[in-house]
Amino acid sequence: MDRRGFLKAGTFAGIASTGAASRLSAAASPSGLEWLSSRPNLRADGTLRLSANENPLGISPGAREAVIEAITDANRYPGFRQKELISRLAARYDLRPENVYLGAGSTEILQMAVQALAASGRPLIVAEPTFEDVPGYRRPFPYRFVTVPLDFRYAHDLERMRDEVEKSNRPSVVYICNPNNPTGSITPSAEVDAWIHDAPESVFFIIDEAYYELVDDASYWSALGWVDRRRNVLVTRTFSKIFGMAGLRIGYGLAHEDTVARFKEFQSNNSTTQLSAAAALASLDDEEFVARSLESNRAARAVVHQTLDELRLGYLPSHTNFIMHEIQGDLRDYIARFREQGISVGRPFPPMLGYNRLSLGTEDEMERWAETIRSFRARGWT
Amino acid sequence: MDRRGFLKAGTFAGIASTGAASRLSAAASPSGLEWLSSRPNLRADGTLRLSANENPLGISPGAREAVIEAITDANRYPGFRQKELISRLAARYDLRPENVYLGAGSTEILQMAVQALAASGRPLIVAEPTFEDVPGYRRPFPYRFVTVPLDFRYAHDLERMRDEVEKSNRPSVVYICNPNNPTGSITPSAEVDAWIHDAPESVFFIIDEAYYELVDDASYWSALGWVDRRRNVLVTRTFSKIFGMAGLRIGYGLAHEDTVARFKEFQSNNSTTQLSAAAALASLDDEEFVARSLESNRAARAVVHQTLDELRLGYLPSHTNFIMHEIQGDLRDYIARFREQGISVGRPFPPMLGYNRLSLGTEDEMERWAETIRSFRARGWT
Repeated sequence: MDRRGFLKAGTFAGIASTGAASRLSAAASPSGLEWLSSRPNLRADGTLRLSANENPLGISPGAREAVIEAITDANRYPGFRQKELISRLAARYDLRPENVYLGAGSTEILQMAVQALAASGRPLIVAEPTFEDVPGYRRPFPYRFVTVPLDFRYAHDLERMRDEVEKSNRPSVVYICNPNNPTGSITPSAEVDAWIHDAPESVFFIIDEAYYELVDDASYWSALGWVDRRRNVLVTRTFSKIFGMAGLRIGYGLAHEDTVARFKEFQSNNSTTQLSAAAALASLDDEEFVARSLESNRAARAVVHQTLDELRLGYLPSHTNFIMHEIQGDLRDYIARFREQGISVGRPFPPMLGYNRLSLGTEDEMERWAETIRSFRARGWT
Repeated sequence: MDRRGFLKAGTFAGIASTGAASRLSAAASPSGLEWLSSRPNLRADGTLRLSANENPLGISPGAREAVIEAITDANRYPGFRQKELISRLAARYDLRPENVYLGAGSTEILQMAVQALAASGRPLIVAEPTFEDVPGYRRPFPYRFVTVPLDFRYAHDLERMRDEVEKSNRPSVVYICNPNNPTGSITPSAEVDAWIHDAPESVFFIIDEAYYELVDDASYWSALGWVDRRRNVLVTRTFSKIFGMAGLRIGYGLAHEDTVARFKEFQSNNSTTQLSAAAALASLDDEEFVARSLESNRAARAVVHQTLDELRLGYLPSHTNFIMHEIQGDLRDYIARFREQGISVGRPFPPMLGYNRLSLGTEDEMERWAETIRSFRARGWT
């Protein structure tokens, strides 16, 4: 099996073929709460957080044990454990350690790329709307910042992005968040591949796959098959989503070794912790936890879909752990009213101000959300 | 008491006046090992690490508990806990939250400053030898890099550094690591203050106080009294040293609010973890652990001094948790021979190649080091 086939087949097909996902599902209580190492409420005011695309299950039991065990090394610089994790990731993707580097979340990997590639007047081309960190990181640099609206499918409009590169006639940086945040939509991987295939090395592709593990769609696969063949492709991944480690700040980049060496000049030394690396090592092959997270996400999504259908509110097909859905009325009012009910549901993502990005909690948590939005409808609010 | 007086008096004077340090010392076993949450050996080969300026006691018992408790939030982005820590630090230093920002170790704070201040041909003036991270971070930027040898006291040669600023006749960046790594020596704070007092805002001072809490010398105090009065002073601190949290990657910067806002443009979003912030919050006011760490460090230093005196090897007065001492013969041979004995003792810090930087472990660990170096002397090696 070639790498891309392996990767696509990898976790999901492997689980599906053994029936692990459904077996786990059957074994769980309706709420799946026995798996929660997390608590929904982070603040004294008890707010339920459905706004940050976090995994409501918490970290896996194995990761929890690994963290506790690693506390004995909390006073030691984390190089040796980082090295172990890099080796494990390299082996997993059939790459060499020189192709892998860690960051405090994949956001630090994105930042290094934005910094390393910066040049006066260089186009940085992103979709609108998309994940805000890349646009944020470019601010102090003299890029020419170009936004291209998503197309009718809410996919990246790669043709228009290509036009922008060609029009500029100079080295360019293209950011493709796939699946895209905040829309949850995918850009067909064949289209991404076609552009990378045709593009000269002067076009650099940053492919953000933060939600990769959550996608189950035949038109989608990873871009990582390119990284040992091309110097102009970076793939970023994170432990924040499927592995429930958003608070542990660890992600990674996969790229050609020359590219990794170049970007690492912008790395903060030792930015990932002993405990994060230990949790990542314990999580990486935990297929049971991955299956559990996927099942929880599907169940939560079903509650939201059913509720939105009932209320006749449209939504984008979600390939992630959040759903972009229509609202009626003013978005800021909508968000404020949920907050009054103790639920944090999102923030504005211009220009999609008729939509709210709702992060998926557990099934029970989404039932609470559903009751609340139904009560809003009863009051004529949405 | 004014801020500077308070800060200087702070931890040490407070402890000394209640007799806490000596009481704790008396209560401890000779080795102090009952406090160890750490293990000396990170690798399967059992190497004793006396090379990375870590606190051999591990993190405090309170920090350990806080980490375990915070695992329930490991799936949540850490903003709320970071905010709490920033508030606590601001209150501690009689500053406002706008004057405080966090990094994945103080090294990330240093990196942001180096990046934010970069300009073509701008002098970046550092001592030689000094902490390597600032020189490292400047590499991709078009600074004019200027090194100025330490003076006869192993203090920063501030007169020569001032000359370099004046000669260049342009905005400059000055890095003062105080106490200095790898020499363990201090630069008298009155001299630093005098320069800051005289300097125009076009001279930016990065004052690295990673080892601040370990100093007990009347000529030394923090530079943080400047940060709310001048836009051109940054003070960096870390939880890696006295608090034993090198593996948890958390430090902070203190500066004028305009400066903080400017430097934060280069910050990686959410780079510190839930668990690190929890450990920091639990450690900050733990005077007992600080006193224990200082006492352990003093005892370990005494073993090293006695041994070096016995072997008639010179050393620099140490104000930190490491000692820069003379060796005889080739430094690389010396380091390799220790490694053969299972002890990692340092690395070369040019141009001081007749010296080794020895990090202080526990008293027992330093006895093992002492026996080893004595055996080398018996073989005529050093």
